[in-house]
Amino acid sequence: MRELLEGGRPGRLGVAVPGPLSVREGVVFKPPNLHGWGEVPLRAMLQDRLGCPVVLENDANAAALGEWWRGSGRGSRHMVYVTVSTGVGGGIILDGALYRGASDVAGEVGHVVVDPAGPVCPCGRVGHLEGIAAGPAIVRWVEGRLREGAPSTLRGHHPLTAEDVAAAAWRGDRLAREAFERAGRYLGWAVGGLLNLLNPEVVVVGGGVARAGAVLFEPMLEAARATAFPRAWEAARVERAALDDRAGLVGVAYLALQG
Amino acid sequence: MRELLEGGRPGRLGVAVPGPLSVREGVVFKPPNLHGWGEVPLRAMLQDRLGCPVVLENDANAAALGEWWRGSGRGSRHMVYVTVSTGVGGGIILDGALYRGASDVAGEVGHVVVDPAGPVCPCGRVGHLEGIAAGPAIVRWVEGRLREGAPSTLRGHHPLTAEDVAAAAWRGDRLAREAFERAGRYLGWAVGGLLNLLNPEVVVVGGGVARAGAVLFEPMLEAARATAFPRAWEAARVERAALDDRAGLVGVAYLALQG
Repeated sequence: MRELLEGGRPGRLGVAVPGPLSVREGVVFKPPNLHGWGEVPLRAMLQDRLGCPVVLENDANAAALGEWWRGSGRGSRHMVYVTVSTGVGGGIILDGALYRGASDVAGEVGHVVVDPAGPVCPCGRVGHLEGIAAGPAIVRWVEGRLREGAPSTLRGHHPLTAEDVAAAAWRGDRLAREAFERAGRYLGWAVGGLLNLLNPEVVVVGGGVARAGAVLFEPMLEAARATAFPRAWEAARVERAALDDRAGLVGVAYLALQG
Repeated sequence: MRELLEGGRPGRLGVAVPGPLSVREGVVFKPPNLHGWGEVPLRAMLQDRLGCPVVLENDANAAALGEWWRGSGRGSRHMVYVTVSTGVGGGIILDGALYRGASDVAGEVGHVVVDPAGPVCPCGRVGHLEGIAAGPAIVRWVEGRLREGAPSTLRGHHPLTAEDVAAAAWRGDRLAREAFERAGRYLGWAVGGLLNLLNPEVVVVGGGVARAGAVLFEPMLEAARATAFPRAWEAARVERAALDDRAGLVGVAYLALQG
């Protein structure tokens, strides 16, 4: 950052960070994925160092804004963004603005119960979508089936990643296909529920796991359609994210430009 | 209605109807619970007869507005209303206004998947909350357990209603208690998910089944708390509806006054 700043001072800075955080107070609260962080007044710290206004945003919300401003949700009024990677996160755009809720928690699409008989979520709660459909959950499911003796080209593959499973699914490996069908189905049920609940014009699905493409999207779309009311389904398109990793960057740029 | 009108013409009329409908077009589309209705241009029909402006609203949305304006959600900015009766419906108030979505479907909180192994919902889809936690679903579950031989004071009770089951639960009947614990738990998982997703200040729970009180609310609150993030849980209160059957009437009055 010091090097970057040698070229000149920024007029304004937008920062995407993992939640939970308070956008109003500019404080990040012990993000579970950032070890050693306590309650960090990140906005004040950066403003002091840089001498320019700083806006903080939850990383999934920032990505939602990016996709809405310059990606697959462009031009929509109501959009739901779902990101499937190490976790399942999201962001909600309503009436052309990011919806943050009462305490900046809104948009946690990965933390809704989709199966009470499902595994424990990384957040510690039972049956959440993230515990079933995120990358590590897909890997865990495959590993469990391998231990049970299921035949697969993935046997002996260590360490196994969701990308490996996706590649095997594309090669026609049956267990890998099943793993993505299962994750896709649960994602689709959740997306269908979001259509009935929020009736958006677009649902944008991104994140590393979504790069698997059709092996995930086909079962997802089928399950979403089976769950949604026709009037909700017909009002919406479900799209792949356009900006990939850059979505968050584009989103905070939007916020910084808005001031 | 003719009699009512003899006393004078209304200046404006608000009407709550079961969905689906288009608020903009003033048209009701084949409501599943109103047999014989096709596509009915209800707003135009009423305006022609009455000679005054008419506003239509989905009945659950109207009740949500009523509870927000004059009931348990009074003074809140973001509120979710859940009604549990013959079905499970709802309405969403965001930033102090009814949120209708892209095609007036938004707020269908009963039609999210909470258990893929659950029964078929009256809407024909599998695993929806309504198929598990609405009054008829509670009765159906009790009847199934009775057929399996479960002991209960409800044996031989025909026809059985959700009100009968609630009364038996209050008397200490174990099967009836279990039935409400089960429905409450599923409702709570859904409410917890809504807290993570929409992060409202209030969730108002109404409808005939909610009149059962603590036998439903205790397991519901426990499950909601177990599902929600602490920051979402702490930002919200979960309240019983205050207006009961009058909520919809109060809601359309609000809409009519708004013009």
